[in-house]
Amino acid sequence: MGPDLEERDAARLRSIITDLLQRHDTSTERAEVAAIADAYGTLSDLGRVRFFAMLAREFWIDRASVDQSIAERQAATDDRTHREADRALRLALTPRSSRLLRLFTGLDFGVKFLVDLRADNLRLWSDPERTVDDTTALNEVGLELRAQLATLFDVGLLELRRLTWATPAALLEKLIEYEAVHTIGSWTDLKNRLDSDRRCYAFFHPAMPDEPLVFVEIALTSGTARVLAPLLDATAPDLDPDRADTAVFYSISNCQPGLAGVNLGTALIEQVVEQLRHDLPQLKTFVTLSPIPGYHAWLEATLRADDLRVHERALLPAAPERVLARLSHHAWDTDEAIQPALVALCARYLTTIRDGRALDPVANFHLANGATIQRINWLADPSPTGRDRSAGLMANYLYEPDHISARAEAFVARNEVSMSSAVRDLLS
Amino acid sequence: MGPDLEERDAARLRSIITDLLQRHDTSTERAEVAAIADAYGTLSDLGRVRFFAMLAREFWIDRASVDQSIAERQAATDDRTHREADRALRLALTPRSSRLLRLFTGLDFGVKFLVDLRADNLRLWSDPERTVDDTTALNEVGLELRAQLATLFDVGLLELRRLTWATPAALLEKLIEYEAVHTIGSWTDLKNRLDSDRRCYAFFHPAMPDEPLVFVEIALTSGTARVLAPLLDATAPDLDPDRADTAVFYSISNCQPGLAGVNLGTALIEQVVEQLRHDLPQLKTFVTLSPIPGYHAWLEATLRADDLRVHERALLPAAPERVLARLSHHAWDTDEAIQPALVALCARYLTTIRDGRALDPVANFHLANGATIQRINWLADPSPTGRDRSAGLMANYLYEPDHISARAEAFVARNEVSMSSAVRDLLS
Amino acid sequence: MGPDLEERDAARLRSIITDLLQRHDTSTERAEVAAIADAYGTLSDLGRVRFFAMLAREFWIDRASVDQSIAERQAATDDRTHREADRALRLALTPRSSRLLRLFTGLDFGVKFLVDLRADNLRLWSDPERTVDDTTALNEVGLELRAQLATLFDVGLLELRRLTWATPAALLEKLIEYEAVHTIGSWTDLKNRLDSDRRCYAFFHPAMPDEPLVFVEIALTSGTARVLAPLLDATAPDLDPDRADTAVFYSISNCQPGLAGVNLGTALIEQVVEQLRHDLPQLKTFVTLSPIPGYHAWLEATLRADDLRVHERALLPAAPERVLARLSHHAWDTDEAIQPALVALCARYLTTIRDGRALDPVANFHLANGATIQRINWLADPSPTGRDRSAGLMANYLYEPDHISARAEAFVARNEVSMSSAVRDLLS
Amino acid sequence: MGPDLEERDAARLRSIITDLLQRHDTSTERAEVAAIADAYGTLSDLGRVRFFAMLAREFWIDRASVDQSIAERQAATDDRTHREADRALRLALTPRSSRLLRLFTGLDFGVKFLVDLRADNLRLWSDPERTVDDTTALNEVGLELRAQLATLFDVGLLELRRLTWATPAALLEKLIEYEAVHTIGSWTDLKNRLDSDRRCYAFFHPAMPDEPLVFVEIALTSGTARVLAPLLDATAPDLDPDRADTAVFYSISNCQPGLAGVNLGTALIEQVVEQLRHDLPQLKTFVTLSPIPGYHAWLEATLRADDLRVHERALLPAAPERVLARLSHHAWDTDEAIQPALVALCARYLTTIRDGRALDPVANFHLANGATIQRINWLADPSPTGRDRSAGLMANYLYEPDHISARAEAFVARNEVSMSSAVRDLLS
Repeated sequence: MGPDLEERDAARLRSIITDLLQRHDTSTERAEVAAIADAYGTLSDLGRVRFFAMLAREFWIDRASVDQSIAERQAATDDRTHREADRALRLALTPRSSRLLRLFTGLDFGVKFLVDLRADNLRLWSDPERTVDDTTALNEVGLELRAQLATLFDVGLLELRRLTWATPAALLEKLIEYEAVHTIGSWTDLKNRLDSDRRCYAFFHPAMPDEPLVFVEIALTSGTARVLAPLLDATAPDLDPDRADTAVFYSISNCQPGLAGVNLGTALIEQVVEQLRHDLPQLKTFVTLSPIPGYHAWLEATLRADDLRVHERALLPAAPERVLARLSHHAWDTDEAIQPALVALCARYLTTIRDGRALDPVANFHLANGATIQRINWLADPSPTGRDRSAGLMANYLYEPDHISARAEAFVARNEVSMSSAVRDLLS
Repeated sequence: MGPDLEERDAARLRSIITDLLQRHDTSTERAEVAAIADAYGTLSDLGRVRFFAMLAREFWIDRASVDQSIAERQAATDDRTHREADRALRLALTPRSSRLLRLFTGLDFGVKFLVDLRADNLRLWSDPERTVDDTTALNEVGLELRAQLATLFDVGLLELRRLTWATPAALLEKLIEYEAVHTIGSWTDLKNRLDSDRRCYAFFHPAMPDEPLVFVEIALTSGTARVLAPLLDATAPDLDPDRADTAVFYSISNCQPGLAGVNLGTALIEQVVEQLRHDLPQLKTFVTLSPIPGYHAWLEATLRADDLRVHERALLPAAPERVLARLSHHAWDTDEAIQPALVALCARYLTTIRDGRALDPVANFHLANGATIQRINWLADPSPTGRDRSAGLMANYLYEPDHISARAEAFVARNEVSMSSAVRDLLS
Repeated sequence: MGPDLEERDAARLRSIITDLLQRHDTSTERAEVAAIADAYGTLSDLGRVRFFAMLAREFWIDRASVDQSIAERQAATDDRTHREADRALRLALTPRSSRLLRLFTGLDFGVKFLVDLRADNLRLWSDPERTVDDTTALNEVGLELRAQLATLFDVGLLELRRLTWATPAALLEKLIEYEAVHTIGSWTDLKNRLDSDRRCYAFFHPAMPDEPLVFVEIALTSGTARVLAPLLDATAPDLDPDRADTAVFYSISNCQPGLAGVNLGTALIEQVVEQLRHDLPQLKTFVTLSPIPGYHAWLEATLRADDLRVHERALLPAAPERVLARLSHHAWDTDEAIQPALVALCARYLTTIRDGRALDPVANFHLANGATIQRINWLADPSPTGRDRSAGLMANYLYEPDHISARAEAFVARNEVSMSSAVRDLLS
Repeated sequence: MGPDLEERDAARLRSIITDLLQRHDTSTERAEVAAIADAYGTLSDLGRVRFFAMLAREFWIDRASVDQSIAERQAATDDRTHREADRALRLALTPRSSRLLRLFTGLDFGVKFLVDLRADNLRLWSDPERTVDDTTALNEVGLELRAQLATLFDVGLLELRRLTWATPAALLEKLIEYEAVHTIGSWTDLKNRLDSDRRCYAFFHPAMPDEPLVFVEIALTSGTARVLAPLLDATAPDLDPDRADTAVFYSISNCQPGLAGVNLGTALIEQVVEQLRHDLPQLKTFVTLSPIPGYHAWLEATLRADDLRVHERALLPAAPERVLARLSHHAWDTDEAIQPALVALCARYLTTIRDGRALDPVANFHLANGATIQRINWLADPSPTGRDRSAGLMANYLYEPDHISARAEAFVARNEVSMSSAVRDLLS
């Protein structure tokens, strides 16, 4: 099959799919489903766009049959027939491709295939070169894929596993690959992150037992960590875990791009906190040390637009443009004078809500999970990345088990941002 | 909470569910979902019916919002808005309780809870004492449950395991409990069924790892078994599996009533045949030795109605009523004269289709799986149960890997029954 | 090879062994060692006696070379040469067959072969029909085997495993087979002994992972059990293990006759007590409920000989011969009048030491392990076996972790029997 | 306790050991044994020498009791009493410390403790600064330790495991640490050595499950590898294992210095060959590519002494001293003229036996295992180490399953060296 899915090849694929979806539900479909998956694997990006477009256009909803179901529903006279008509209409609105996508699950590695299919779909969809029609088609299939993946990756089906230095190397290698927050530089670095005073947990799906889905790295400390460096220092002495009073969640990384929009991190934090409280009952504090990845860009825009509040302006050691220049200076990390303004503006940034979401994606994640913004730390991550994204700052988000539920609901339902009095003081 | 869910208790449950479904998707729902599951567990049958009715009536589809979605759909002007309207309408048609049911999955043992909820629902639904309204409500929730279970128990998520005498006793005990075709009388009987010339396979779900879902028992033989007794004889010598040429599937049992209508047997047979061909490549024949559970009742009705074809009547050794009497006689199993008629009528019974299904449920299962009716065996199961249900007959259904796909499709799509020439000869 | 090892066959075996023992230590011996093991497997009892005799006579110690080593030792002039001579003499005294026996270990199932070889050896040795010479030969090889097995089954190499109802049926079946104290009547009985308020632990050897070596059955109770019946009652309600304060060891069984004389029970009790204290810290009392298997025979002899102390005679309700008759009566278990004498005499029996060992083998085992005799219980086991062996009595031996070490040493080194004041009172 | 075991501390240790060895065999010794092991752990090297000396002097053999046993033996009159006397004498010759050493096995990690104790013993024994008396004492205890370890590490108790990239990182890390032949430079290098066309096997002891004892690295190739570089090249493409015809054993490393003198490599090669023949039946050739570590030193001595045979001298391109100089030249590896003489002399080196052993330790190992010297390869390992130890040469030793046994025996018993005709031709 040509990689670009020319019409002749497309016709063959179309015929297999047509045949498959006409079939009744018998045991005989696997070979054909596998043939479609194999064919997909050989396609170029262009071919894949055409494949998705074929699904969205030719194997989607039969509008005539929807219209007919609507008519029948309007003719329903009693509750029972009304219910039947509702069900029939819902069925008519279920895309025919939906069944094809579900059939992939039954293949060996079929669940992984679906995850990768979604990753492809997202990547192609976000390509600005696509035509409007292709983008619509990609979006249509993508939404269906996400819905199916959300069901397949229901938290009730996932397994929480602790990863240690005794975990198979082939799996640990994936942590190095997927760590998105603070790059793992070497196996020595990795080993340090799995020391006796560290914890690492990941979710796994039973059909992809060797693939972590999302993982969190934790340091057990005495008191809350305010800066990153000691946590990543492989030469620092280990703390006896039984003497730790605090668990610092310093990195959460998603491993499967195809699961974007399927929230696994929330349940991961919830279950890990539960696990840690069970294993180490003397732990009192569960807190993150998190980057503020959108802050630098927001800061730049805010300063350039001179969109400052009175108390913020009072903290500025120089004209807004100068502050940006000083932040770009190679010795910025010794420029203590800019600290008060940067921290105060960061408090505003972290607590600003737009369209029901916190501006900062990390803040939004933790606030929606029920955390409170506890502290903003100057020079917490002075690495180049830390400066360019977070202006060198990091935030502690505090998870207090007794308040998680109420805070999450308050944030999600009413956009109420929970913060410590220290952070609140920064706002005025 | 009172077991019958009086209105005061119902109000409390209603309030929790309302609160839960109003919530946004956060991490804070588990406690409330668990509270609902716990409350359900304490209810009497009457209370459970009321619970299902509450779901179907108060947490189902908002028809006004469906109507509005239909209106918006009719206003759609281009493909993109039409697609959006379709999706919105489909969403409006998704019962609100659907989300509640999915939330149960996230509980510990939540998957098992859903399976048992469905079993309850089916049991209550089939109770002839229910009012029409309650039956409608039970059916509505039951269909939603079945759909969710069909997704959760997708074959791609199941694990095929071989069970042997080295399997945990706690699990083997469940085979004794669930074996539905040929009762396992003792641990000695069970051990015999797990001997070196036997195979037993079951499907498991990762969230219920100690609960078999469906299992099949197989005897490795030299030549096709025509009668049951030697297979169940614990004192028979074992055959060296490497010298067997035939695998006889003599029992398939579903273990979870709540999964009724979720077809797992077909995939089980398919995967087991694949496994056996891999492990024992010298196996040539894959065949069942199956009961014919509806035959006796059909035979009685047919003889009483004198609904006989010419060649059948010619085989009768006496008047139809007399044949029935002779079959009831204590020495019926020595009455060779009735054999030809009983076998010939059985061939008609097995091959009769009504409403797209074979009359006999076991025949329907194997024909839909792509098997062919190979042979009908006289006195294959002369036990009281065998006589009362199958008139002492058993059938061999033959699975020929190269023909399974075509036969299944022919049967399901066009009601074509595949049979050997020997069986065909019995029909005329 | 003929089963009785006629001289022609013996010559062949002799030649293989000779060849093997002449060989240097290379990788090439396995096939020959396996040939010897296979040949042994085909031999009759007579053949096996001849095999052991061949080892003890033809592949044992070369006395001339011992004599020479002694002479060289006497010529040693300094410490170094003296040490060398000691080593050489020790080597000369090591039987040549010792190496053959060790080579068996390297075979697949070789460790099990050695265990079974020893079991054979013991069985043949205890046969009164053997000639003196054969008995001497069997004993010689048997002692060497025991020494090698004691090394192979060093407690440091064994694995303690808890057995539960989730243990493979093939392994649980062996508990039924090996239980020597209180027969397991059925799988239902077995399941009862693995309930939530029971514990069962066994030692395993890594080279025989499916074979329990010795196992102990424990009931978790509230207070010390005085009688057996409730412990074996499958219908008795289960106790919540967290509410138990006592662990009653009511059965210890060795599974491998070939390990006679290799004491595993002591370490088993020690490790199990440690495990239970860790898992269930609220347990306060570790006690046995044990048979007194030699009591009835001793009682009979003692009464017949009229070998009674004054206070014992005072407790007799009738003449000694009459007491024996009343104990044989079918309603003996309602004959309360004989109780005081039987209990008092039992106290004497349990505390009598002869040749450094307690008369009663069970008492000797527990006293040597550091237990104290806590109580003697009337009608504790009124079963026929209980009457015929223990006169219906059972004893509680109490293990007090803080005193185990001192009591064991006092018993073994100085024959001091530890007992409660209640038992002591029975003695006078 | 002071680290040097001053007399006051020694007295305490002496008292514990005395007490322990006086004890009878009860369950009460673990705490004291652990106390001795802990005390040992805190000792300096000087303290450890004193500890070993104390064992060898104060807890060894009671010569008076040996003398008495000898006297009793001489008085023996018949076979039975003679046998008894032999056993008693052997027992008297068993060092009292032997029991102490065996007791260590019962500790947690006791087997590892014994292995490390032996490693210590060897290290201290080989220290030239020791006094003669201390050396004698260290040797005495060391021999007893080796004998006990040889029994504990009997091949029948070991487990062969394949190591792959899916093996726990903590274990793979040990391969990096222990690889003695060709250093593993990085995790990337390690991953290459575990690729699909590689195999790595190790022996493990059940009481030290995370510690490899000895491991072998194998490359699956098409044809016999003559040079090392391609085997260590991480960028070389992988071969499909099913297309390989040859298994090249290119590295065998012992991991436990304390097991020196306990031959595990022979059984490892034997079992790995068996495993590979089972898994990959198309493999035809099992061959090593081995260093010749003593060659360069021997060559230098031989050339300096001008100890040359006629045909060897004829191959020399220059005076013996010049050849050595050219081998030291930085461009030696392009000096083709020296090859013929170096290869011919190497053939002599490899086949020279002294005191029953091949001069080269690697050659001796493989010849004793039953291999044949197949080929000597010029520039097979031109690394600095390869030049300095093996003059850049490597040897192929060929294992032919059908001849292994006879060759091993011929070499060990009669010093016959098996070699290919090509190698033989080099000798004259």
